[in-house]
Amino acid sequence: MSRKASLSGFHEWLPAERIVEQHVLDTLRNTFELHGFSSIETRAVETLGQLLRKGEIDKEVYAVSRLQADTDQGAARAQDSQDPNRLALHFDLTVPFARYVVENAGHLSFPFRRYQIQKVWRGERPQEGRAREFTQADIDVVGDGTLPFRSDVDVALVMAEALGALPIGDFTIRINNRKLAEGFYRGLGLEDTAGVLRNIDKLEKIGADEVSRLLQSELGATEDQAAQALALAAIRTEDTSFVEQVRALGVTHELLEEGLEELAGVVGELHRRAPGRAVADLSIARGLDYYTGTVYETVLVGHEQLGSICSGGRYDALASKGNRTFPGVGLSIGVTRLMMRMFSQDMARASRSVPTAVYIALTHDDDWSAAQDTAQFLRARGIPAEVAVSAEKFGKQIKYADKRGIPYVWFTSVGEDGAATHQVKDIRSGEQVDADPATWTPPAEDLRPQVLEN
Amino acid sequence: MSRKASLSGFHEWLPAERIVEQHVLDTLRNTFELHGFSSIETRAVETLGQLLRKGEIDKEVYAVSRLQADTDQGAARAQDSQDPNRLALHFDLTVPFARYVVENAGHLSFPFRRYQIQKVWRGERPQEGRAREFTQADIDVVGDGTLPFRSDVDVALVMAEALGALPIGDFTIRINNRKLAEGFYRGLGLEDTAGVLRNIDKLEKIGADEVSRLLQSELGATEDQAAQALALAAIRTEDTSFVEQVRALGVTHELLEEGLEELAGVVGELHRRAPGRAVADLSIARGLDYYTGTVYETVLVGHEQLGSICSGGRYDALASKGNRTFPGVGLSIGVTRLMMRMFSQDMARASRSVPTAVYIALTHDDDWSAAQDTAQFLRARGIPAEVAVSAEKFGKQIKYADKRGIPYVWFTSVGEDGAATHQVKDIRSGEQVDADPATWTPPAEDLRPQVLEN
Repeated sequence: MSRKASLSGFHEWLPAERIVEQHVLDTLRNTFELHGFSSIETRAVETLGQLLRKGEIDKEVYAVSRLQADTDQGAARAQDSQDPNRLALHFDLTVPFARYVVENAGHLSFPFRRYQIQKVWRGERPQEGRAREFTQADIDVVGDGTLPFRSDVDVALVMAEALGALPIGDFTIRINNRKLAEGFYRGLGLEDTAGVLRNIDKLEKIGADEVSRLLQSELGATEDQAAQALALAAIRTEDTSFVEQVRALGVTHELLEEGLEELAGVVGELHRRAPGRAVADLSIARGLDYYTGTVYETVLVGHEQLGSICSGGRYDALASKGNRTFPGVGLSIGVTRLMMRMFSQDMARASRSVPTAVYIALTHDDDWSAAQDTAQFLRARGIPAEVAVSAEKFGKQIKYADKRGIPYVWFTSVGEDGAATHQVKDIRSGEQVDADPATWTPPAEDLRPQVLEN
Repeated sequence: MSRKASLSGFHEWLPAERIVEQHVLDTLRNTFELHGFSSIETRAVETLGQLLRKGEIDKEVYAVSRLQADTDQGAARAQDSQDPNRLALHFDLTVPFARYVVENAGHLSFPFRRYQIQKVWRGERPQEGRAREFTQADIDVVGDGTLPFRSDVDVALVMAEALGALPIGDFTIRINNRKLAEGFYRGLGLEDTAGVLRNIDKLEKIGADEVSRLLQSELGATEDQAAQALALAAIRTEDTSFVEQVRALGVTHELLEEGLEELAGVVGELHRRAPGRAVADLSIARGLDYYTGTVYETVLVGHEQLGSICSGGRYDALASKGNRTFPGVGLSIGVTRLMMRMFSQDMARASRSVPTAVYIALTHDDDWSAAQDTAQFLRARGIPAEVAVSAEKFGKQIKYADKRGIPYVWFTSVGEDGAATHQVKDIRSGEQVDADPATWTPPAEDLRPQVLEN
């Protein structure tokens, strides 16, 4: 991370960093699969029509066109930022997933549990925590027509477990519920619930006094209504005691009751199964307007200013096909944002920069094929082994292995009788012992590079 | 594969197909890592200047531009297909790798062994075997200044092993050597060796007579020279006996000798270690002009018309930085091309469409949390488990599991004394037995979806 990207906003990792990233992605994949989520990948491009269905993000989109098309009849079209058939790179994995579900509905079984780990692209101004190309890891559960609320609990449990298995230290999943907030505002007599949410979303940035002023001046709230909305947003509990705190505010509404019950369901179960991982935080608004119930965001403890590293929510109609709708709930991890922070704060590192566990030194150039035999014995038992490409001085060969953190160097010498004797050296301790390529095995922790939490 | 892509040339797999693809990618990764190759990924975009360094492929490139830029000062530039700073999607992994090596040379140890598995994009006309978005899996070894010839043998061995581990049936790696061919042509008195190669490359398409005619009319070869060039291209042996066959043609040249020795080195070692996997095929030319020694291509036996599924070669200067050059040798598997053929010919399939091994049925909606306890016991021991989202009739829950190929359904009933009894049903055999969530384990082959070769 001391290196500067040669193209601003497009990060590339060195081999040792990539090992940490692979560990993170493997861990996520394993957790998702243990919970029965299926992997899918969607194409990198969508039509502008698909991407801009929700309206708001056109400035961030990368359009794609065949270079050849520029110079012929495609020229006009290549410039038309309104053409809905024009292709562009996806900026998240939710919109492509919605299209995939609609297109393949006849081939899927619902509720459909899928995970998707892919790169996405946004033409934003690069800054700390933001990249133009980055990897997301999403899970969603989508139903056909209906989806029980229980899935809202399920996906949060899966993500708490997945994030808990990563070398990222402590985190907090902050959970709220749109129904709770909207019901409360309506119970208060504030009908422009989206407007209230939009202002509450500014709390961290502009403070309570300014939000109160805006609620009164922009939305016509009374001072008391504004105070009540702010009191709601101030509630934050690790267990379900938020329910009593909300009730104490004296507002009643049917939707509020529904929201309280749902949020208590999610937070209660998380509190029981993953204590300390989640809080009910009634200030969480989440910008995107298609969420209809539970909303989640996640901060790394001690790195709150990084923003959310895992967000999502419930949407009652992510996708629809004729009069068939597909409600869903999901969460998305910003893997690249996490990696950037992990590297810049030195939170984790790989025990070596290559997969190789054993480096087979060459005594003579002619021994290469015999050395490959040794390597083959080791690989057949799952031990990554690499043969030197030329018979340089042993000191140089050991240095080559040491530089990459390869723990073992293997030496073979052929006696006058043609019999080979083998020795293996642990270059960390210097210890060198006789070894048989068909049976010698390193300790399990030396087999593959380990990712060490600092 | 009976489904049509919603965007021509951009294929997306169903969950069960994706399991087969994941198996292929995992197998490749494992083989590459056992041989000490490091993973890297490069950004999806390169500058046009980088991409078009070799000249020939501009028509196939997808240019990328921020949608916003279209409507302001970027408009002119977004249209300029000559602007070397303009961004475009990479069309292979070799050009980006070369840039990566030059940029990060100070952070890498040479010879640098890397593998890279990523999507690439080409704006070609889609047809059988060709897609506009496809996954490539590359290995390369790159040296700093020099790279021993031995690496040419090494990468071919790794690929023979990697392809041999895939459910794709028989394949043949066809190997030739540029030095051999060029030395032979020079020894014959034909100096335009690139011209001869270009015509020999057309052999399969237009036949020997027509190639002979072109060699004479275009390159001024005599009938005898043309016959000799064609005689060379007709040589094909599984072992090193091609050397004698070439010598029997009576042509001598220093470069020819070097080429013969190198090709014998590769083919001899492959014949010894992976018998039947490789042939010396002296008709192989490979279009790209930067190869300088060994060239490889690979066909699936019985699917030769699909074209090469794994190609590459030796390049003496893939990349350079000032007067420092980085010679390399590598091979690239066309994973998507392989997947398309595997699916269209029904060569392999997943044993089920989801990772889930055990589906936990619900007797009452209130049991959900208790069912999660059971699931957690199973997952902790690496058994993928999924809990039903609602307590529907058992028949319906079993049908849901069966439809996805989940082998086991788990039932829990709580007695009047509050004690739970557990049973697990193998829905293939119908057998149902008592089971303890803390100890019950399915056979290893039921743990994760298996990929079965048809």
